[in-house]
Amino acid sequence: MNYIHSAQNQKVKQWKKLLTKKERDKTLTFLVEGYHLVEEALNSGSIAEIIMGEQVELPAAWNYGDIPVNVVSNEIIQLLSDTETSQAIFAVCEQKTYDSVLEEGRKFLLLDAVQDPGNLGTMIRTADAAGMDAVFVGKGSVDMYNPKVLRSAQGSHFHLPIIGEDLGVLISKLKQQGAAVYGTALENGRPYTEIDKSDIFALLVGNEGNGVNSELLAETDENLYIPIFGKSESLNVSIAAGILMYHLRS
Amino acid sequence: MNYIHSAQNQKVKQWKKLLTKKERDKTLTFLVEGYHLVEEALNSGSIAEIIMGEQVELPAAWNYGDIPVNVVSNEIIQLLSDTETSQAIFAVCEQKTYDSVLEEGRKFLLLDAVQDPGNLGTMIRTADAAGMDAVFVGKGSVDMYNPKVLRSAQGSHFHLPIIGEDLGVLISKLKQQGAAVYGTALENGRPYTEIDKSDIFALLVGNEGNGVNSELLAETDENLYIPIFGKSESLNVSIAAGILMYHLRS
Repeated sequence: MNYIHSAQNQKVKQWKKLLTKKERDKTLTFLVEGYHLVEEALNSGSIAEIIMGEQVELPAAWNYGDIPVNVVSNEIIQLLSDTETSQAIFAVCEQKTYDSVLEEGRKFLLLDAVQDPGNLGTMIRTADAAGMDAVFVGKGSVDMYNPKVLRSAQGSHFHLPIIGEDLGVLISKLKQQGAAVYGTALENGRPYTEIDKSDIFALLVGNEGNGVNSELLAETDENLYIPIFGKSESLNVSIAAGILMYHLRS
Repeated sequence: MNYIHSAQNQKVKQWKKLLTKKERDKTLTFLVEGYHLVEEALNSGSIAEIIMGEQVELPAAWNYGDIPVNVVSNEIIQLLSDTETSQAIFAVCEQKTYDSVLEEGRKFLLLDAVQDPGNLGTMIRTADAAGMDAVFVGKGSVDMYNPKVLRSAQGSHFHLPIIGEDLGVLISKLKQQGAAVYGTALENGRPYTEIDKSDIFALLVGNEGNGVNSELLAETDENLYIPIFGKSESLNVSIAAGILMYHLRS
């Protein structure tokens, strides 16, 4: 174990930089916080190093082999934590890259400019539950490695590929491969219940305020809507995505 | 208009108290913030008084008749606001009571010990969209008039009855009236897709960590689960509620 007490330590400065998207993009690593996420990262073989408070004991069941473990002061925990009451355990994880997702997968979730981290994380978690093969995150979306996104996704980042992608290019490729590409819209669409399940499909949902970009909607095979039976103006995007993913795959 | 600049003013002290559940329960009023919620409250006839910053102009289309309007200093706005960037407009609203919801309604959402305000608000919004006739909020849940609940529900509090209730008593009454009462459970349930839509039903969902109280689950007609096809442990409760409400009512 490696003991670090000073917030001025170079390693600490480097970890703290991982709270920015810029540094995550540059290093292709990210930071996760809390027992559950560190355990998921460990099981997926993604961890580069572990960081924990002096009071923390690593669970006996964890097989962390020769992964470096850094024991740090509470001051450093506070610097790195994104939560109100930190569990004082973190891991630096390596971002994965994926080659053959399109060829091997059959069910995809595409996210256009989703800006709320809770929504992005919840949709990643729901895509995992619904057995989707990958999630593609388009431009204008919150960073998929944002701490709040990681927390809301509850470890699903380690369960299925989450990939930043140009959705316009992706939709063309998906159509060439014979996938049914479904957009979502409040108007000019078909009620989702008219659509039967598909063997190979992509579901495209969009920004919380503006929905899916109209240029992308023009490229889909069909655009779906969920009927509003009451007086609310719309559904939360992650609720809509959940209803549609489960409908299309069931 | 009534101008108030001092945070020591008695009215300001009273409004500030409405940030506590205790005072909301005592006065049977609550505070909403932002143009959208104030407009929804206005349209539903729930507003007792309006509070706004000096820079705010009420939209010309708002017909607020003789509802008192208080213009207040930015210091007071900050005291009352639950948001990072306040729109500097609030309304004190009257809580509604409901008599004949059970007799007249056919579709009900029951919430057992839901503790996250975003989840509670999102489920109220989704219940509204799905055309549910009322939402019943059981013991151990976050207060339904909590500012974050109100914000997540986006005005649906003014669209359908939201009622605090003992769920055990309620379930007995619902069964006597012939409603199908569906609980939700991760185990020992039936897959939701086996259940056909019901003319009159109640859906019971539970706490984020522990699910529905087992004593309540023992009183339902059936307990349902949503299959997990991937590797996530569970679905977020508001996603599960959305999938089930739309399935049962469609």
